[in-house]
Amino acid sequence: MALIVQKFGGTSVANTERIFNVADIVTRTAAAGNQVVVVVSAQGDTTDDFIEKAAEITDKPPAREMDVLLSAGEQISMALLAMAIEKLGYHATSLTGWQAGIETSLEYGAARIHRVKPERIRSLLDRHRIVVVAGFQGVNSHQSITTLGRGGSDTTAVAIAAALGADLCQIYTDVDGVYTADPRVVPNARKLEEITFDEMLELASLGAQVLHNRSVEMAKKYNIDLEVLSSLTRNPGTKVKEVVSVEKMIISGVACDKDTARIAVMGIPDKPGHAFRLFSLLANNGINVDIILQSIGHDDVRDISFTIKRGQLDAAMQILEENKDRLHFTSFSGKSDLAKVSVVGAGMTSTPGVAAKLFDALASAQVNIRMISTSEIKISVLIDESDATRAVRAVHDKFFN
Amino acid sequence: MALIVQKFGGTSVANTERIFNVADIVTRTAAAGNQVVVVVSAQGDTTDDFIEKAAEITDKPPAREMDVLLSAGEQISMALLAMAIEKLGYHATSLTGWQAGIETSLEYGAARIHRVKPERIRSLLDRHRIVVVAGFQGVNSHQSITTLGRGGSDTTAVAIAAALGADLCQIYTDVDGVYTADPRVVPNARKLEEITFDEMLELASLGAQVLHNRSVEMAKKYNIDLEVLSSLTRNPGTKVKEVVSVEKMIISGVACDKDTARIAVMGIPDKPGHAFRLFSLLANNGINVDIILQSIGHDDVRDISFTIKRGQLDAAMQILEENKDRLHFTSFSGKSDLAKVSVVGAGMTSTPGVAAKLFDALASAQVNIRMISTSEIKISVLIDESDATRAVRAVHDKFFN
Repeated sequence: MALIVQKFGGTSVANTERIFNVADIVTRTAAAGNQVVVVVSAQGDTTDDFIEKAAEITDKPPAREMDVLLSAGEQISMALLAMAIEKLGYHATSLTGWQAGIETSLEYGAARIHRVKPERIRSLLDRHRIVVVAGFQGVNSHQSITTLGRGGSDTTAVAIAAALGADLCQIYTDVDGVYTADPRVVPNARKLEEITFDEMLELASLGAQVLHNRSVEMAKKYNIDLEVLSSLTRNPGTKVKEVVSVEKMIISGVACDKDTARIAVMGIPDKPGHAFRLFSLLANNGINVDIILQSIGHDDVRDISFTIKRGQLDAAMQILEENKDRLHFTSFSGKSDLAKVSVVGAGMTSTPGVAAKLFDALASAQVNIRMISTSEIKISVLIDESDATRAVRAVHDKFFN
Repeated sequence: MALIVQKFGGTSVANTERIFNVADIVTRTAAAGNQVVVVVSAQGDTTDDFIEKAAEITDKPPAREMDVLLSAGEQISMALLAMAIEKLGYHATSLTGWQAGIETSLEYGAARIHRVKPERIRSLLDRHRIVVVAGFQGVNSHQSITTLGRGGSDTTAVAIAAALGADLCQIYTDVDGVYTADPRVVPNARKLEEITFDEMLELASLGAQVLHNRSVEMAKKYNIDLEVLSSLTRNPGTKVKEVVSVEKMIISGVACDKDTARIAVMGIPDKPGHAFRLFSLLANNGINVDIILQSIGHDDVRDISFTIKRGQLDAAMQILEENKDRLHFTSFSGKSDLAKVSVVGAGMTSTPGVAAKLFDALASAQVNIRMISTSEIKISVLIDESDATRAVRAVHDKFFN
């Protein structure tokens, strides 16, 4: 008998038919002799409906009341799912965040889970019940309802799995696993059987929107085996774990992130502290810098280029304009039609020639590289957005065919 | 400074405009220097929508999960109302049943409030906040969500008023008070300024659907002044209290209850215990008997007629049929096209001639009386349904013109 946490997103419970599909998956898992905790998101468009209702009242809804409103969404879906499970002849009990012991930090809208008190869930499991828990929500020390922000239901599932010492945490979503590249871009992309936490973290941060980073980080921290799979196809998904089998490929995947823009700042004095001042100013304004490229410099000045999220380009440009004199640079420019293509793989560290293979593929596809960034398990290149699809296909072909 | 509990029903918060209307009433009450606790029902059709969703899943939704589902309705409306109050520049905090300390009995769907722990509401009031509480819901000793059944939000409001020692509990509804008769039947019916708890209880049980009996009983028990009024007209409503001013009318109102049917049982042996056996059998099957009329009897047998709710007529007839031999009667018949017309008034006890006046009115209107029942503050007559409107008008004219 294993203890399995299964998480289902909003599309998986969007209507009655889908709810019964989920109830079928859950009850089959229970029928196979497992204890099952189900974490469920709000149905399909419920959250959007609620946001619209609030927007009709005020353009600045108080964050606390917004969380009260939004958390009603999972309360609806969890009750309906519990009813469907009972209809299939199994015993189910639904629990809201506060009932399930999901204790969070104070802040509304983006609370973090402090701890999960597992007693009530465990006591229900001991009484042979399937436990349905509301994702995305918890309760803070004021006994007020909080929501966890983006990817919150995944985080709920992993946190519960950690608190219960679950054997597996399955994240059911609308894709059936993690692929070597986006299948919409690379038709022959393959589904990975396994991937390490670190690789998953790199892929997630590079725009492969399968699992939210917070949940992967938590799974890594507590060493909870994850599985990403589809509630519709019912095929085996992708396992995310600390160590994967030795015969795995050097590269796990090719990711493409189009949410990127570059700023080039020219003529910064080549003295200590000037580059620091630039980046600390951006950081203080909430702008995250990704890749940084610094020129070698000439005539006591140098140029610095860096990438940021595309949505932050205007704000960053304005900050530079306002601080031109303080920062002592001569000019700057921004460019947004760029993409970052990356290869990710834990095997990279022990395998020479990965970078060479990457650059060879890009050169053959006549893709011009504007910036390069590397980490232990990742090589990223910044290229023109118009080259992105061609680049991803060429790199994928090179490594996987 | 007074402490006022204001309850608003589902039609009062049905849409954004109505929510702001309620927020306006609430904030004006606060601006006048009062502490305000607002109890709110689910928006207009939310409850029906939820019942429909559940019906798509199963024809026998587990009661516990039904309460989880339904209670999301008030959570939505309370958050939206709190947002609207904040938009008007006042501080508001919404509380679900469990957050507001509404502790109930175990049973789902029709829980009773055991007690209200007022600490959290009081602490918010002390910090000059308007507190918005979800009506109709609470939490039982299993820490599971319960709903209170019909009239539940009124009961929530009165229970909170009692726990806080509020000065007044205002029940805003879609009628603007308690009338001397149903204004749809008697166009010149007058709104009562005041009415006693006992009169209100008699009127409610007689089909004047203004306040649910449970809330009036609780208000009487804890001596909480009630006021029934409309959120739309904003006119003064009707005050319900223990003692009303001495100059009040003998009769408070004329009520008509068409949810009534009569069963006549003929030829019951005129021996001790036979009538008891009949009524205990009905009681054990959940059938409430209202008026009972027993004939004087002849030839060692007598006839008994009694009234019940119209919806229970078939069930009662079946019980009689199945127990014909045991009960030793000769025959029975049922009739449902009847109505019960009643006059209610605390002044009745000390004023002779009320019954005579009533019968005079009915005789003048050529209404035939089939049964009569009296209590301390009420006289009821059973008549043909087709005579009901004529009877109510004639009686109202007699007492109020």
